[in-house]
Amino acid sequence: MGTPVNRTAVRRLPEKQLHDRASLDAVLDAGRVAHVAVHDDDGQPYVVPVGYARAGDAVLFHGSTASRLFRSLAGGASTCLTVTLLDGLVLARSLFESSMHYRSAMVLGSSQMLDGEAKVAGLERISEHLMPGRWVDARQPNRKELAATLVLSLPLDEWSVKVSEGPPDDAAEDLDLPVWAGVLSQHETYGEATAAPDLRPGLELPGYVRDWTPR
Amino acid sequence: MGTPVNRTAVRRLPEKQLHDRASLDAVLDAGRVAHVAVHDDDGQPYVVPVGYARAGDAVLFHGSTASRLFRSLAGGASTCLTVTLLDGLVLARSLFESSMHYRSAMVLGSSQMLDGEAKVAGLERISEHLMPGRWVDARQPNRKELAATLVLSLPLDEWSVKVSEGPPDDAAEDLDLPVWAGVLSQHETYGEATAAPDLRPGLELPGYVRDWTPR
Repeated sequence: MGTPVNRTAVRRLPEKQLHDRASLDAVLDAGRVAHVAVHDDDGQPYVVPVGYARAGDAVLFHGSTASRLFRSLAGGASTCLTVTLLDGLVLARSLFESSMHYRSAMVLGSSQMLDGEAKVAGLERISEHLMPGRWVDARQPNRKELAATLVLSLPLDEWSVKVSEGPPDDAAEDLDLPVWAGVLSQHETYGEATAAPDLRPGLELPGYVRDWTPR
Repeated sequence: MGTPVNRTAVRRLPEKQLHDRASLDAVLDAGRVAHVAVHDDDGQPYVVPVGYARAGDAVLFHGSTASRLFRSLAGGASTCLTVTLLDGLVLARSLFESSMHYRSAMVLGSSQMLDGEAKVAGLERISEHLMPGRWVDARQPNRKELAATLVLSLPLDEWSVKVSEGPPDDAAEDLDLPVWAGVLSQHETYGEATAAPDLRPGLELPGYVRDWTPR
């Protein structure tokens, strides 16, 4: 099991960095989309959004075998995967101390390509993270679809996690300013389910969709 | 004004790529946090979340002068800034066609450091993007705070924007499967405002905070 090392150490605002795996897992398990770094042969970096899931001591994500960038990741290129969840706006009396409430996890390393049963299990894990109950209900990938998909596993060896919470932290000399200060919370919610226009008649919205609330 | 060029061309799902600046601006103006790529001297990439705002033909974001990674960006390192907004889960009959509704903008290039009046104007632009009305109400940055802050400007010269929307796109042979299909929409909302525990008595929640709804 990994621990944060020097190159992921937070040099500013160290009070916000957490060092326990449970905090890392909580952030990774609460997110649905990560941003992954990969660069091309000319050194140009790209930041690509991916759906993902944590599976034990790794983060799994998938992409197309037709993508140069994903093939580069499958070949073991150094990468960074970051998950950021926004929880609110922090309105301090000074703009300098104003910020956001957030939870952010950063994982450094090289990913490995999953194959065979591990690949299918990885896809199931990602699917069940995004919509629990869907894997056994929907049509699972066939051989051709599996061949078109790369499933990558990035181990949780080197990581950092930061959580910003609590009230504004204004300097003492600003506390008397006639400026309202506080936090405006932010939430992600799922709204209505809209059936496909070509839905086969007689199919009801499944309970696992109707009742699901994200973590 | 920039246009997408080859290295940001979408090779898969080309129907999702838009080529007009208005679509790019709409995505950038709707987001609040971007993920920015930067690598260290060893070539290790990092993906860092930043608050940002679009200002005309550039994206502005800020960081600490104490951060090696931000100093590297200020020095003109190649970067990629990506904004991703999630709008829903697409539940197709097949897991292969299942995906997300999203809007994503990617900007490639090198950022420049802003100084003097342009730096203050940049901070105002970011602040007003995140909470309109706050800049003239809160205490603006003093000389020491400005010196601790880097404001970077990334021109909108090379970019791509992708929007995924609409119903699930299942293959014809899957349409008769007894599987519910559709879209579960997702929203970000602001909730309650919580005053700082040390708030000076008699200060009401400002109207610009109470009535503000994100784009």
